[in-house]
Amino acid sequence: MHGFNKKIGVLGGGQLGKMLAIAAANWHQPIHFLDQSADYPAGPFASGFTEGDFNEYTPVYHFGKTMDVLTIEIEHVNTHALHQLKAEGVKVHPQPAALEIIKDKGVQKLFLEKHGFPTPAFQFFDDEFLLAAAISAGSIRFPFVQKLLTSGYDGRGVAVIQGVADTEKLLPGQCLIESFVPIYKELSVIVARNEYGQTAVFPPVEMEFNAEANLMERLICPADIGPNICRKAEKMAVELMEAFDICGLLAVEMFLDEQETLFVNEVAPRPHNSGHHTIESCFTSQFEQHLRAILNLPLGSTRLKSPSVMVNLLGEPDHEGVAKYLGLEKCLRMEGVYLHLYGKQKTKPYRKMGHATILDTDINAARRKADFISETIKIIA
Amino acid sequence: MHGFNKKIGVLGGGQLGKMLAIAAANWHQPIHFLDQSADYPAGPFASGFTEGDFNEYTPVYHFGKTMDVLTIEIEHVNTHALHQLKAEGVKVHPQPAALEIIKDKGVQKLFLEKHGFPTPAFQFFDDEFLLAAAISAGSIRFPFVQKLLTSGYDGRGVAVIQGVADTEKLLPGQCLIESFVPIYKELSVIVARNEYGQTAVFPPVEMEFNAEANLMERLICPADIGPNICRKAEKMAVELMEAFDICGLLAVEMFLDEQETLFVNEVAPRPHNSGHHTIESCFTSQFEQHLRAILNLPLGSTRLKSPSVMVNLLGEPDHEGVAKYLGLEKCLRMEGVYLHLYGKQKTKPYRKMGHATILDTDINAARRKADFISETIKIIA
Repeated sequence: MHGFNKKIGVLGGGQLGKMLAIAAANWHQPIHFLDQSADYPAGPFASGFTEGDFNEYTPVYHFGKTMDVLTIEIEHVNTHALHQLKAEGVKVHPQPAALEIIKDKGVQKLFLEKHGFPTPAFQFFDDEFLLAAAISAGSIRFPFVQKLLTSGYDGRGVAVIQGVADTEKLLPGQCLIESFVPIYKELSVIVARNEYGQTAVFPPVEMEFNAEANLMERLICPADIGPNICRKAEKMAVELMEAFDICGLLAVEMFLDEQETLFVNEVAPRPHNSGHHTIESCFTSQFEQHLRAILNLPLGSTRLKSPSVMVNLLGEPDHEGVAKYLGLEKCLRMEGVYLHLYGKQKTKPYRKMGHATILDTDINAARRKADFISETIKIIA
Repeated sequence: MHGFNKKIGVLGGGQLGKMLAIAAANWHQPIHFLDQSADYPAGPFASGFTEGDFNEYTPVYHFGKTMDVLTIEIEHVNTHALHQLKAEGVKVHPQPAALEIIKDKGVQKLFLEKHGFPTPAFQFFDDEFLLAAAISAGSIRFPFVQKLLTSGYDGRGVAVIQGVADTEKLLPGQCLIESFVPIYKELSVIVARNEYGQTAVFPPVEMEFNAEANLMERLICPADIGPNICRKAEKMAVELMEAFDICGLLAVEMFLDEQETLFVNEVAPRPHNSGHHTIESCFTSQFEQHLRAILNLPLGSTRLKSPSVMVNLLGEPDHEGVAKYLGLEKCLRMEGVYLHLYGKQKTKPYRKMGHATILDTDINAARRKADFISETIKIIA
């Protein structure tokens, strides 16, 4: 149709895909999805939705073969098919070799180490028994973080082990353990890159976690860090993207310790929960930016229009079943509150069901509105 | 699904419907459309699209019967069916009696006059021959504006007659003529109202027209008028909405003359071209506001986040056929430029194919960017 009218395929049809589809809608840019069910969040806004498993070679290959540009909203996809598609001339962003590094947390750590990016010290274990044995032998320092090498997403596959009593919380499977960095702040920086090598960095954000669910619960933008840390974090994110040599987005989660040392925690080569606020708070949203990057268009300005706070709307802990939403209306009364509901039919404890972004020139006022939203909106079964 | 989860039906599936669907997407709010073809702009983003003619009783009735709330994106629809649906308990916003007043420009003028709203003097003619005869008899003062009573939309059905030589430009059919107000500025004010009677007014905007196409070409927000005129214009818009007793949106186009007198030109009870800039420039967009109003939710803040200029992207005058877009990439390089393409397959001279909104704290910088966009983007066949 128009100058940048290519057929985009996305592996994964969840909320990230949905928000990508909404960004594409502004340009009437065709965007197709591959995921298990067209009832998933992206379904109603897709130019086409193919039902299939993005972990399998055949569906990914056949889906990708009909696209001009293929991208992802989750990194746990079949990369063999992506290599083949790339060899056959389909543009694949991010490139499959980088995906293979990133989707295995062990390989990702080795990559960070090899390229000189600071990251917490780590150690591999073939399974939880060997790790338990090492704990019994007294060779492990507490506290530590156990991360399964694969299938970690949305807080799954990560356990914080405080002491011997926590040994029963160890997750089963191949894993690594990381020494516990005394965290002053957790930051996230999202960077974009197109095929020309143009990069653009969104302002660093500060993340606050729900310890129980190990999920980001709230995000503050801009992060309350000095200009030096800010520049360092941005520079590190750009260098990482260039090291991975990918196009699209890279979200880099970082730890900042009390000594103002930055560590890379982990990366995701796609739109990220820590960038949802950009829809309203930046000149370009992370979703439009991802489209620009993979279509090799000029990247948009990442400048902040307004300070913002983002809260995830999580399923209530004790509820599982068809979702009901309480308290939405009350939150719509407040100025600068933007509700995003993902349309997942069923809620589960701590499931990400939506998010709210709050714009306010006074960040403390925005925090108070976020408190009110967290207390008021309940997603129950 | 959620607290405000009603099934919305919209008569008309053009660009206004499309942008309403995008606003509904944020809440995963079901929204269905009735229009001739699912290839129309709203098609890809609809929860459901029924192909049919919204001018006919049967399709409107059957479509509406399956909805909780029925609304419009064009006023030229079958109101008999709407009356029946309303009687049967479907919520119809705006109410059909008001639609009947508004969709006939003659009845609309009489309504304005009856309720004491200032509007240019007018005179009815049963057809163009009687009007021509009156011109020949010398009883008509030039210049004047001829408006067909029905089917006027997007500049169709309106002719500006400067003198006797223009008589050949008279449009055929029942019409009214309006005395020509010496216009200092053309303004538009959009107001929202929900079932509780809560109202909220968007800041008045200034419109600049393409004389050839008689279409708004550019919009400036906020309008460069003093606070008194601003308050008067806002008050008039609210009073009009209350006089029509409707829920949803009302766009009021006004003339301001050199003596700072305000006249109502005409009204539209729906999202309006003069409100597109609100997507990026106001705390709440006109589309989300329309949803809030018809769902009887609290209205959102209409406060301006940034000054803005909106330009329509019109089909080139000499081109008709499958649309091609030139110059889009160059415009994406500028900060604060938001492109909206409606996805119409075919272009026609002056057809509204999209729009661009420019945010800039410096309104003159925004104007220069708008100039660049108008010069750069060409939609050809």
